[in-house]
Amino acid sequence: MGTLRVGMVGLGVVGGGVAKILQESAAELARRSGRRLELTRVAVRDPAKSRDIALPAGIVTDDLAKVVEGDACDVVIELMGGTTTARDVVLRALANGKSVVTANKALLATHGAELFAAARQAGQTIAFEAAVAGGVPIIANLSQCLTANRIESLTAILNGTCNFILSKMHAEGVPYSDVIAEAQRLGYAEADPAMDVDGTDTVQKLTILAQLAFGAVADWATVPRGGIDTLDLADVRFAQQRGYTIKLLGVAQSTPTGVQLRVGPTLVKNERQLAQVGGAFNAVRVTADAVGELLYYGPGAGRMPTASAVVADLVDTAVGRARLTFDTLGLWDASAPGPAIASPADAIGRYYLRVIGDDQPGVLAQIAGCLAAQGISIASFLQHEPLTDGKLVPLIITTHDTTEGAAARACDKIAALESVQGKPVRLRIAD
Amino acid sequence: MGTLRVGMVGLGVVGGGVAKILQESAAELARRSGRRLELTRVAVRDPAKSRDIALPAGIVTDDLAKVVEGDACDVVIELMGGTTTARDVVLRALANGKSVVTANKALLATHGAELFAAARQAGQTIAFEAAVAGGVPIIANLSQCLTANRIESLTAILNGTCNFILSKMHAEGVPYSDVIAEAQRLGYAEADPAMDVDGTDTVQKLTILAQLAFGAVADWATVPRGGIDTLDLADVRFAQQRGYTIKLLGVAQSTPTGVQLRVGPTLVKNERQLAQVGGAFNAVRVTADAVGELLYYGPGAGRMPTASAVVADLVDTAVGRARLTFDTLGLWDASAPGPAIASPADAIGRYYLRVIGDDQPGVLAQIAGCLAAQGISIASFLQHEPLTDGKLVPLIITTHDTTEGAAARACDKIAALESVQGKPVRLRIAD
Repeated sequence: MGTLRVGMVGLGVVGGGVAKILQESAAELARRSGRRLELTRVAVRDPAKSRDIALPAGIVTDDLAKVVEGDACDVVIELMGGTTTARDVVLRALANGKSVVTANKALLATHGAELFAAARQAGQTIAFEAAVAGGVPIIANLSQCLTANRIESLTAILNGTCNFILSKMHAEGVPYSDVIAEAQRLGYAEADPAMDVDGTDTVQKLTILAQLAFGAVADWATVPRGGIDTLDLADVRFAQQRGYTIKLLGVAQSTPTGVQLRVGPTLVKNERQLAQVGGAFNAVRVTADAVGELLYYGPGAGRMPTASAVVADLVDTAVGRARLTFDTLGLWDASAPGPAIASPADAIGRYYLRVIGDDQPGVLAQIAGCLAAQGISIASFLQHEPLTDGKLVPLIITTHDTTEGAAARACDKIAALESVQGKPVRLRIAD
Repeated sequence: MGTLRVGMVGLGVVGGGVAKILQESAAELARRSGRRLELTRVAVRDPAKSRDIALPAGIVTDDLAKVVEGDACDVVIELMGGTTTARDVVLRALANGKSVVTANKALLATHGAELFAAARQAGQTIAFEAAVAGGVPIIANLSQCLTANRIESLTAILNGTCNFILSKMHAEGVPYSDVIAEAQRLGYAEADPAMDVDGTDTVQKLTILAQLAFGAVADWATVPRGGIDTLDLADVRFAQQRGYTIKLLGVAQSTPTGVQLRVGPTLVKNERQLAQVGGAFNAVRVTADAVGELLYYGPGAGRMPTASAVVADLVDTAVGRARLTFDTLGLWDASAPGPAIASPADAIGRYYLRVIGDDQPGVLAQIAGCLAAQGISIASFLQHEPLTDGKLVPLIITTHDTTEGAAARACDKIAALESVQGKPVRLRIAD
């Protein structure tokens, strides 16, 4: 039985988990890999820092080159995060004949094409199960298990921090600002949670899934993106009153004009499984021509779930499955361009609108006129009691199917009405 | 680009679906397989029968040998069902140097050890994604995606027919006998549904999952098994009143004394995801040391979902992943015996009991005494209004954790009480 010598860059939360699994499950992993998996080098910024994982002497180093160059390692696990040094680490590892396992969604979403080209050039592989949805093996499922299918859509909760915060806002009726503080205290949110709560993290993961599901290459920065950081508790309450739960959804959909992508807080009917995903969990709903509908649910982050995904990649690399999958999938391959990315303005769907209007005659007629002018049909309308000052009323409108472009134009017109305060809140409804 | 020549035995519901995918997605499949997948021979009982799938002339034959022998096929898909001729087909295909894809859970549950030994002997592979949970890729997930984990438990809804019937009984309050007739009319149940509704189908699938998850070899015929065919509507109602849904669950659990297996109607708290799996869907909940909890949900049967699983196996076989997985997993390998199967009497859990007692003083004390004598602690007790004749009352008891053995002994004692009518109904509660 041979040995696969494993190098790792980063020994933080996830890296510690990977080291723990490699130590504690060594025998099982060797059986399932056909080879021993041996951690031979771990590069960290500060080798002297005290850690909760004990590694044999001589393994930990602050010299990246000892992992990504030389012959101490056959495969390199990149767990440092970020897109600058991490890119360099992956490129150097590949150039030095080492395959790569990474959990870095920002890196792949930003430099996927370059890194996969480099891997093909070097005759090496990149595996990235842990980059999306943590412990939920959605990468392998899209890459291998659904190969008989044409994927029609992905609808996914991909950020555990946001889902934790949204669950609290719904269950306890407390505003975003209160919950984020608690989430940070409990470790469910980073000290700087911006990339999570503004939807960036979800968009980056979604574009990776879109590459796997559709072969579509999307620039994540151009995907329409909403976060939960601007979500008002009032909308959570109104959604609840109408039988909906608000979730931060990433949606990728095959349409006649290309792949539609979007991320944003979305109203989901309470009966739908995605509405019931609580806490820091993730879920991915897949619809496809042969299988119909599948749902995957599990922990989207955390030390051991993410390490579980990293080590699954390591076993796949050791066994040789990663090589076969990499060679046949041709991901981010410029020579085989995928479907176009559809114009966001053409996206079809229903909307929830909240408009604050003056409590006086004619306001509703004006708003309805703005919608009618864009050909938007109203599905339901509710005028609430005036707000505390007695002069303004919240108007809750749900629409029938329309386009994103028409909805945006209608809302611009509504915002410009003299009798309307501020911009309407506009959220998608997922039926 | 080479060609994988595919033979198939059986062209019924699933076989027709496989042929359809191979025809309609030929280009995509070739890309994902690195080879063309070409259906070269299909053996059927009656080639003259009219079918909804058009195959090129000369492919369909009534001569099994033209598929499993000779050199027209590289791989054989067994879709005939049953365990006698199907066993022969698989053994002959393997002996003639052909790898096998099968959707036949009864075959694997009954002859797994023999067939896998024959495959190893012949240097061929057996892939069987479609044998369990239809379109839900639970086989690949246990074989490949969770390799970093020690599986702790599987809790699964594996029979769509039963889940469809149970969903109807709950939603409409109609008894089993009425729903089974409707299910047969709608095509959700076979003309002879015995193997579905008595739990046999679920047990066979569960033992296959237990082999993958734990390496345990279980004789399916000895696994404790309850069906839905004897489930009384009264218990559905009482369960609902207490916030439970009754599901036909297959459970496999790692315990200190071995792997516990059981199948039976089980009370599941309404808030649990498994309780919310409706209609003919399947779901598998996995708990494991690293990942924690995962849930897979999707169509457990039907033409295209099952064909999706079969074709995924075909692509894995074409790519070579099936070979790598087969070689490293060593399934049903007598030279590497897995953990023991634990004694069912030792299984720990909570129970729901329904006892029909005379409406007279002292009955409850006697029943409680039978439970106490076995060390069983009562969690809740409810005496209902007398039944229509006014002389008998239903007593609903839920217990705290106890063993299956103690619960069975207590129920035997209760059944023997003069003031009790018939045997108590006893169902497991899944907390």
